[in-house]
Amino acid sequence: MQNTQIILNSRPNGMVEASNFTIQESTINELQDGELLIKIKYISLDPAMRGWMNAGTTYIKGVEIGAVMRAFAAGEVIDSKNDVFAIGDHVQGLLGAQTHAISNGKGLSKCDLSKGNLSWHLGILGMPGMTAYFGLLERGQPKAGETVFVSGAAGIVGSTVGQIAKIKGCKVVGTAGTKAKCDYLLKDCGFDIAINYKEEDVHAVLKQHCPEGIHIFYDNVGGPLLDTALANLAKGARVVICGAISQYNSKSMYGPKNYMKIVTARGHITGIIVFDFLERYPEAVAQLSDWLHTGKMNTKEHIFNGIDTFPSVLKKLFTGENFGKLLIKVS
Amino acid sequence: MQNTQIILNSRPNGMVEASNFTIQESTINELQDGELLIKIKYISLDPAMRGWMNAGTTYIKGVEIGAVMRAFAAGEVIDSKNDVFAIGDHVQGLLGAQTHAISNGKGLSKCDLSKGNLSWHLGILGMPGMTAYFGLLERGQPKAGETVFVSGAAGIVGSTVGQIAKIKGCKVVGTAGTKAKCDYLLKDCGFDIAINYKEEDVHAVLKQHCPEGIHIFYDNVGGPLLDTALANLAKGARVVICGAISQYNSKSMYGPKNYMKIVTARGHITGIIVFDFLERYPEAVAQLSDWLHTGKMNTKEHIFNGIDTFPSVLKKLFTGENFGKLLIKVS
Repeated sequence: MQNTQIILNSRPNGMVEASNFTIQESTINELQDGELLIKIKYISLDPAMRGWMNAGTTYIKGVEIGAVMRAFAAGEVIDSKNDVFAIGDHVQGLLGAQTHAISNGKGLSKCDLSKGNLSWHLGILGMPGMTAYFGLLERGQPKAGETVFVSGAAGIVGSTVGQIAKIKGCKVVGTAGTKAKCDYLLKDCGFDIAINYKEEDVHAVLKQHCPEGIHIFYDNVGGPLLDTALANLAKGARVVICGAISQYNSKSMYGPKNYMKIVTARGHITGIIVFDFLERYPEAVAQLSDWLHTGKMNTKEHIFNGIDTFPSVLKKLFTGENFGKLLIKVS
Repeated sequence: MQNTQIILNSRPNGMVEASNFTIQESTINELQDGELLIKIKYISLDPAMRGWMNAGTTYIKGVEIGAVMRAFAAGEVIDSKNDVFAIGDHVQGLLGAQTHAISNGKGLSKCDLSKGNLSWHLGILGMPGMTAYFGLLERGQPKAGETVFVSGAAGIVGSTVGQIAKIKGCKVVGTAGTKAKCDYLLKDCGFDIAINYKEEDVHAVLKQHCPEGIHIFYDNVGGPLLDTALANLAKGARVVICGAISQYNSKSMYGPKNYMKIVTARGHITGIIVFDFLERYPEAVAQLSDWLHTGKMNTKEHIFNGIDTFPSVLKKLFTGENFGKLLIKVS
């Protein structure tokens, strides 16, 4: 049986390009005791991938040149010599950007399809959903009546954060880069205010509509928008740094000039590394699934077909072209 | 009776200059009921003054052009129509840069000279000492065995922070800008490591001598040094922003490019506004006085004579020329 794999061919110098990848065919090895074979159905495209393409180690080692690109993926077990995972099980984990994966079961989790579609287990019920859930609730500690400001709000993490904040009784404000995305935030996600940061003066809108200041800033974007948020903090504000997608393809990182606003606001800046909450994923999956099934929350997907689209699709995460959780459906 | 006053004449454009001030003679008004007259003996020169010279409001309103320059000062009550403060009492507060002050007693506190010299009540037993004490202990929460890194370590706040951290059983590392200051940190303040940031590679010294990383960074300086500290955080690190003296005279603030290191370190960035601990000052004064009198701690002063030196002396805070708590002794 053949495996089609996306190989990291070169490291990007600035913006990620399709040419950073090659597509390779390889033969699938025979299973050893304890291993299982997964036929991958969906590959997740996540902003974190840009960091994984760099040399060196941050919270996780960079992908080696010539190796299969690291990726979250979900699929079905089609062969197993493993006691925990049986043929027919649906699973997800860091299976790589490929059509088939052999795993020893470590770091793999079963997807309960009664909780949601398989693809959701890579989105709102997967790593991005967990990041939103624990980042907002544990790091942000929202209280009813507070104002939550989310950047990159139309993304899978941002839209989930905003919807959870609404459920918790907060006033929710988000930024996005198109009118369609802003409409989605207002109409489908129940945001109170959506700001098109490409066309509106974010600072002025915040001053006008949030004179009480921001109690929680959940940042997916970084850059000057972070400074704007810092300039509008309420007393006791919590800034939760999740990502800085505006900066991942820059050669030099933008440092927030307004960082001392956290001092006068008597607030703090912290971050979310989702892997720290691994043991509590089931709790979050159950809660999010319940909110989804009872219509209190929705999620949006943006799906491309065929693994060969991977090299060109990844870039869409950073250009603002994608709208919804970006996935590749492996044919 | 005549009062000599330092007047804010113009706002600095970049570095503070002597020409931003004028000296004015005025007549002292007669006391109203509830008021007291203080003969000022010491005027404190503090980095915060640079911010007070700007227009606008941060945690406190900027000084108006033509007004007496805001300053902490200490002196003796020489006349009183106030029930709380009697002739002969020693007091300190925001009395302004002048030789005499009339106060209604609000915000004024008595200086217990058994706790330390009057001048100490503007330094280690005053606002800077309180900033060090509550900033380190409440915001930093040091634990024995942890590594505490202090920037601007030879200043009154930094040297006090480092000495408290040593008393609490921490490993203490500080930066300063001259060999004499580094020697002072090692010999008089008991620091484990003192780094001359003008001559040494701070990052390399930290990597070599603190491979365990920094658990608390107490920042008085800001700028690229903050980035160096962020790149060397230990897991669970607390960054306490006290000041950014390297930036106060800059026209644009330096933003820390490494701010996302707080995420991977699972730490947080917070700040200290000393006025939030006003009610607990007596506890800190008693503790610091005890440490000073039992030889567990020392403090250094840098005193200029005569109020007319004020305009030229203030700048020394920002050029690194001062060494010890900067004060003017009013003749």
